[in-house]
Amino acid sequence: MREQNQQLALLSWTDQMRYLTGYCEDGHKRLLALLVPAQGEPAFVVPSMNMQQARSNPAGITTVLGWEDATGWSEAVQSLLRSWKIADGADVLIDDELQSVHLLGFQELFPNLHCHAADGMLSQLRRIKTDAELASMSTAATLIDTVFEEAVGTLYEGITETELQDVVLAAIKRHSSTPSFSPLVCFGANGAMPHHHSDETKLKRGDVVIIDIGCTSEGYASDITRTLAFGEPNDPDARAVYDLVSRAHHASRAAAKPGVSCAAVDAAARDLIAGEGYDDRFLHRLGHGIGLSTHEPPYMHSGTTLPLEPGMCFSVEPGIYLPDRFGVRIENIVTVTHNGIRSLNAEPATELRIVG
Amino acid sequence: MREQNQQLALLSWTDQMRYLTGYCEDGHKRLLALLVPAQGEPAFVVPSMNMQQARSNPAGITTVLGWEDATGWSEAVQSLLRSWKIADGADVLIDDELQSVHLLGFQELFPNLHCHAADGMLSQLRRIKTDAELASMSTAATLIDTVFEEAVGTLYEGITETELQDVVLAAIKRHSSTPSFSPLVCFGANGAMPHHHSDETKLKRGDVVIIDIGCTSEGYASDITRTLAFGEPNDPDARAVYDLVSRAHHASRAAAKPGVSCAAVDAAARDLIAGEGYDDRFLHRLGHGIGLSTHEPPYMHSGTTLPLEPGMCFSVEPGIYLPDRFGVRIENIVTVTHNGIRSLNAEPATELRIVG
Repeated sequence: MREQNQQLALLSWTDQMRYLTGYCEDGHKRLLALLVPAQGEPAFVVPSMNMQQARSNPAGITTVLGWEDATGWSEAVQSLLRSWKIADGADVLIDDELQSVHLLGFQELFPNLHCHAADGMLSQLRRIKTDAELASMSTAATLIDTVFEEAVGTLYEGITETELQDVVLAAIKRHSSTPSFSPLVCFGANGAMPHHHSDETKLKRGDVVIIDIGCTSEGYASDITRTLAFGEPNDPDARAVYDLVSRAHHASRAAAKPGVSCAAVDAAARDLIAGEGYDDRFLHRLGHGIGLSTHEPPYMHSGTTLPLEPGMCFSVEPGIYLPDRFGVRIENIVTVTHNGIRSLNAEPATELRIVG
Repeated sequence: MREQNQQLALLSWTDQMRYLTGYCEDGHKRLLALLVPAQGEPAFVVPSMNMQQARSNPAGITTVLGWEDATGWSEAVQSLLRSWKIADGADVLIDDELQSVHLLGFQELFPNLHCHAADGMLSQLRRIKTDAELASMSTAATLIDTVFEEAVGTLYEGITETELQDVVLAAIKRHSSTPSFSPLVCFGANGAMPHHHSDETKLKRGDVVIIDIGCTSEGYASDITRTLAFGEPNDPDARAVYDLVSRAHHASRAAAKPGVSCAAVDAAARDLIAGEGYDDRFLHRLGHGIGLSTHEPPYMHSGTTLPLEPGMCFSVEPGIYLPDRFGVRIENIVTVTHNGIRSLNAEPATELRIVG
């Protein structure tokens, strides 16, 4: 922060707080914040009723100011900024996920401070994983690979998307883990929507199926996507599209190594897909960084010039989505090594897998 | 908006969007917004991959602009504001829960607009419930009363807090409902933290137990808290504290009627608790509005001068928290009638209930 002349960071109950202090809990709509000055000791400002928990933060931060519903948090925050001598015109980092009502309140209190999104700077700390972090991510990845195979084993004609979601959640729990996001299950044409909300759609013979699931280990996330067919696929293009996405997936992995930009890794898959005329059906970036957050920088798209470095972890998840027909997405998490990448997940099938 | 000279509202994927359009889905960290101009037709700005879902919004909003990960949403938002002729200096409403990174991006694009939190204005629409909304809230309330009794029936010595959470979640699901928030279960001294995170603590004979749970019907939330003892309470003050909180709960309910301020309703319970020397152990506001959101305006504390009106719904949930000993909280949802309030939940026990 001092190098970049940022006088203060205001962080909310997000993975930023969890990363820096080991403590984080849902503030619901209330401000529950960690304030980190460039000069001085960090402090929590939390609802009074959360003080007992905040005081036991693993980082040992001893200043914990509570605020009451009736009077609000202004006074607590003002007293801290006064004590740290944050001057007019100073630059301040704001947690990307802080709720706007609190940013607006902060800006009203301190109209002469310049607020900037904090993700960029914090991701400089977080994007290179330590060996301990990598070990947790590998454990989470292996676990979700197992859960996926367990879930595939339960497929039958007529199971609904939400029933399969429940199978996945139960398996994650049985393995003493927690989901890193709500399991995404798409049968048939629902797979053409990358963020379809699983519903009561029943599995039919011939459906292409997308399963996108993740869990955690020691707080670190996993995230995989597999596409398969339940019986011989009805759509005559299903195998060819799968083959193309599989080649795109591996093209990006082959391109990734230290010094190569995130944009170039994205382009490797995208160019291959574009070469076969599907560029307008690859609806999203190649992938996202992953760690304590399931989605974190670096984001793998043409706008990210950041070069890869050993220890970064990200998803490689090209997809092709054909409205009213089906979708294909293949996702592994990889980590950058000294000369390439290593996959944390088991290898996806190179040909469309048929089950049932 | 025109009355209050607000030129535009920028709403995120929150209950605000759901209330106004019937559509809402998780944008994760991406901007997925509804823009409502004071003059002109509202429009969605969503990630490209969400366009198919956004286009099918029940409100029939036809303008849906997609944006790509690589280029971002600036151009889409700028084109809309140009078409609506939003001028420099205009006042704009911002969804309270919009992530700050997007507000900062919006402020950078439009440095001469004045941004304000939207909750105040939108709550004017949302806080008076229609008969249909009240019917859904009653259904949700009755359902959670049933779930509570089912959960109490499963208590045994040694059950953990998380196991009891699972019992509650399973019961909610069996009744074809969904939780309105993560069930809160506190055994013994954990009850002294209003927002304790349920853990592997085992139920012991003599524990005071707090159960705070809710579910939904047609999207509308319920939320109740019950306090009971598992066997004769170990703490000699448990019965007296329960009695005091019970009287405080009913004092606030007795005070509530059209024209009385939210602050006065809060004060009725608070004064009674203060009268017995526990004012510094009532750590939070009396309650919160409830509807599509579990927590929404009006907030019941001394800072809310708003007078009650028929059709408002809110929680009455005084509590007393004694560190390292136990806590007591008693919560019902009530709705304001023409001459008082009506409880949507069954009545809590007036004396500390002993089970097991």
